Amino acid sequence: MNLMSFFGKKDPTASVAKNRLQILLAHERLDNGEDARLVSALREDILEVVRKRLDIDPDAVRLEMERDGGVTTLGIDIELPTSVRRKSA
Amino acid sequence: MNLMSFFGKKDPTASVAKNRLQILLAHERLDNGEDARLVSALREDILEVVRKRLDIDPDAVRLEMERDGGVTTLGIDIELPTSVRRKSA
Repeated sequence: MNLMSFFGKKDPTASVAKNRLQILLAHERLDNGEDARLVSALREDILEVVRKRLDIDPDAVRLEMERDGGVTTLGIDIELPTSVRRKSA
Repeated sequence: MNLMSFFGKKDPTASVAKNRLQILLAHERLDNGEDARLVSALREDILEVVRKRLDIDPDAVRLEMERDGGVTTLGIDIELPTSVRRKSA
């Protein structure tokens, strides 16, 4: 699963300085495209709940989706401000 | 990050037959325990949005959370019915 390396792509020095939230979704085995639709829908839902809790710069969100065999994977990499502004949700 | 192996723990024969959704969250670098609280809160939020889209047996959800250095990781492994019952949400 290539996307496993998604989390490893960051600059190692940056990873020390940066505050980030990374989310990986993997969904197995629906052959009719339903998995991709489901994962896309969950991506929106999950970004929405994350936005409710944290102030996120839309430019600081990186998304990567791929299908490999029977598995659809989605990576969400969110760079957070160094001092996290948590919302009082 | 040990939790990367979380997705690999399944029985390879079962992985062919089963339909599953796996979610991995990783949050870096808050030293005051806020990361664990944030990840716990996101876990609840994410499980809620997943439940809105899919019928999930609570017994079929496996959770694993760990802190390793500056990273808090959470694994969510949901075994879905072979014929996924999508909700018309």
